[in-house]
Amino acid sequence: MKCNPTASMKAELTEIKGAILAPRGFKAAGVFCDIKRLGTGKGSEKGNKRDLALIVSEAPATVAGMFTTNQACAAPVKVCVECVKHGRAQAVVVNSGNANACTGKQGLQDALEMARFTERALAFPQGSVLVGSTGRIGVTLPMDNVRAGIIEAATLLGSTAGHAAQAAEAIMTSDTRSKQVAVQFKVGGKAVRIGGICKGAGMIQPGMSPNGKRPGAAPLHATMLCFITTDAAAEAKVLQAALREAVAHSFNRITVDGDMSTNDTVLVLANGLARNRDFGLGTLDFGLFQSALTHVCLALAKMIVRDGEGVSRVVTVRVNGARTFADADAAARAVANSPLVKTSWHGGDPNWGRIIAAVGYSPAAIVEEKVDIGYSTPASRKILWSLKRGQPTSATFKALCAAVAPKEFDLHINLNLGPAGALMYAADLTEDYVEFNKGDVSDPSSLGG
Amino acid sequence: MKCNPTASMKAELTEIKGAILAPRGFKAAGVFCDIKRLGTGKGSEKGNKRDLALIVSEAPATVAGMFTTNQACAAPVKVCVECVKHGRAQAVVVNSGNANACTGKQGLQDALEMARFTERALAFPQGSVLVGSTGRIGVTLPMDNVRAGIIEAATLLGSTAGHAAQAAEAIMTSDTRSKQVAVQFKVGGKAVRIGGICKGAGMIQPGMSPNGKRPGAAPLHATMLCFITTDAAAEAKVLQAALREAVAHSFNRITVDGDMSTNDTVLVLANGLARNRDFGLGTLDFGLFQSALTHVCLALAKMIVRDGEGVSRVVTVRVNGARTFADADAAARAVANSPLVKTSWHGGDPNWGRIIAAVGYSPAAIVEEKVDIGYSTPASRKILWSLKRGQPTSATFKALCAAVAPKEFDLHINLNLGPAGALMYAADLTEDYVEFNKGDVSDPSSLGG
Repeated sequence: MKCNPTASMKAELTEIKGAILAPRGFKAAGVFCDIKRLGTGKGSEKGNKRDLALIVSEAPATVAGMFTTNQACAAPVKVCVECVKHGRAQAVVVNSGNANACTGKQGLQDALEMARFTERALAFPQGSVLVGSTGRIGVTLPMDNVRAGIIEAATLLGSTAGHAAQAAEAIMTSDTRSKQVAVQFKVGGKAVRIGGICKGAGMIQPGMSPNGKRPGAAPLHATMLCFITTDAAAEAKVLQAALREAVAHSFNRITVDGDMSTNDTVLVLANGLARNRDFGLGTLDFGLFQSALTHVCLALAKMIVRDGEGVSRVVTVRVNGARTFADADAAARAVANSPLVKTSWHGGDPNWGRIIAAVGYSPAAIVEEKVDIGYSTPASRKILWSLKRGQPTSATFKALCAAVAPKEFDLHINLNLGPAGALMYAADLTEDYVEFNKGDVSDPSSLGG
Repeated sequence: MKCNPTASMKAELTEIKGAILAPRGFKAAGVFCDIKRLGTGKGSEKGNKRDLALIVSEAPATVAGMFTTNQACAAPVKVCVECVKHGRAQAVVVNSGNANACTGKQGLQDALEMARFTERALAFPQGSVLVGSTGRIGVTLPMDNVRAGIIEAATLLGSTAGHAAQAAEAIMTSDTRSKQVAVQFKVGGKAVRIGGICKGAGMIQPGMSPNGKRPGAAPLHATMLCFITTDAAAEAKVLQAALREAVAHSFNRITVDGDMSTNDTVLVLANGLARNRDFGLGTLDFGLFQSALTHVCLALAKMIVRDGEGVSRVVTVRVNGARTFADADAAARAVANSPLVKTSWHGGDPNWGRIIAAVGYSPAAIVEEKVDIGYSTPASRKILWSLKRGQPTSATFKALCAAVAPKEFDLHINLNLGPAGALMYAADLTEDYVEFNKGDVSDPSSLGG
């Protein structure tokens, strides 16, 4: 049977409130412990943005993860990859403000200490806590602050929507808003819930794999962190299969700036408190779970693109008619990451000349005389074609401008060479992105990713 | 023997004035014929920027060319590839304001007609005129204007430095200044001259090959056009070998925005009027010629980066210690095209965290714990290291900022894994680049590359 959602499956999926605390048996907290050493006072009561999150399951859970394939991967990623191999965990501790990347042996020690200290604070067994970091690269963590934060967070754990929101805030860096979602669906009559929080903004074009290794010769391409909870009962290998598929259709298909982070991480904890019947790969129940997990990941992934640094427009680049998926993917990524295409999106300019140039220099096989390029909006499914078989259509410049004027639109590229397709959720490139990222050299804390 | 220049060879090379008209037996003209249909009057006497150039050799010449590997290559590229195969030509006609790209059969007819019409105007045999175009994509050429321009240019041909400057102006698009160079050296006692003009600005990361075909599986990556004249006597195959090597070390190693154009073209005409003794591949004379041609190409290529759209800083990215050239090249291109790295250069920010992240996501094999990153300026050859073996050095943030403050600096990345190296001449990414390229949708002529 297919793992893809059918209409009837989708109909059974309901978005609910509560994010990571919607599933039964989870608690969370988000606190300020001054990871960036702002020195502006301690404690979240001081009005500083929270910078340490703790997510805890009441019951032992199975775990799955997807991690950056960047060869300069951060210490917390290394720690998680090992922990996830065992398939079981019960909590995640995450800091923002410091990526603990390029920090050598000290960094690895610190990441392990974050996990071990949290285990002791929660009276959990060793190896049951996962760790995440995001922020400045190349600076070691202020471990006294981290320990103080963990103790405070462990004290403040709770299961309200407010607690979930505090955790979601604590993982933010350049995000302008927190990102949360939760869904509910039924497996054999039992209500199952999946909730998630994530952060993004810049250095966003994830290319994640289950072990941080590249799956073949193809180079993959934020810091994006995503933490997902579910009360589903699912074996670790089943959970990993579902997460891999969900990430392939969501986080691994987004780009803000084409830069892949050292820290990209997606973790899912499944504590089984829904008491659903066991499901295995390829079963109808697995299909339901897969569909729901993909929905959560895709909703969060799109929030990352919409809230990317300086982003003014979001474009779904849909390449079809490629000879192979690799070709479709390469063409979509070339267009989605072309500075000239991205600046034209920002300007509301239907610049198909730049689009076909990007497709043409991509590794994808194309025949210029066969390429179609068109635009549609979510509101109107009708595609306005600017190019058909390599030739401009009779569409007027005014009509084409109107097609690319909405804040979100779809770009359709048909290579007319074969059966394969791929899509990318992409952001435009704006003056604000440049302004934000050129940094403030009067502030050394701007050093890093 | 080595083809690389030795100190003594370099010493014999002198930069001279006159650009493409420094070599004996060449004439040129640059005129305004309203390719963009501005309708603001005709004739260059009206103060409009010239948009059609004609470069003519008095004597039949051998020819070599390098062309974009973009699969959506423009009609004039297709015409040149065929013509260059025969190894002989006597003139080049070039327009700016219209790329004659994505213009189908009509475009190919027009490109051929530009060549044929010029041949008739000059009373040259068929197949002796090469053609180039740059500008808007997807619009057919105003051939009446082109023909009028060719007739005017043929009438105004001359051999003064002013004529060379007019031709250099006529090929400009978003360039803020014209780009010209010439050198003189001796082959067996005979003075040989090489001169060149080029244009660049945006859509700049050329990846050219002699036939527009990709040399293997590796995807290559402006519109840049370059026209070189020489009075050297050189067989076509010798000229092609020299040009291929020169382009590999110059135009194929620059990037402004990472976008590869549909029109990139380098052509060299050698009319033999220096009456130098014949030289073959691998001879000392070939080495001298190769060195001089590389000097001309590199000088012009650097002018393109310095005058790239919105460029405020130029960085030479030097990767060494890679296992293979392909790895060194991939790492250098990843860094040179990373939006986060390029915006940090703009900000004067020594952001090695972003640099190691880009190296880490590149296809190049790296070991984080072995990577060195440092900076030097042309004035001071001393490298200030920010990272040694994956760990921050004791260099202060202030010192690192000072190292990246000059308008031009070198970035050194040593992977410490092997013997291979590669470099890229790269531009930063600025608000001005975005502002310029987001286009003006009130002006349909902004459509295109």
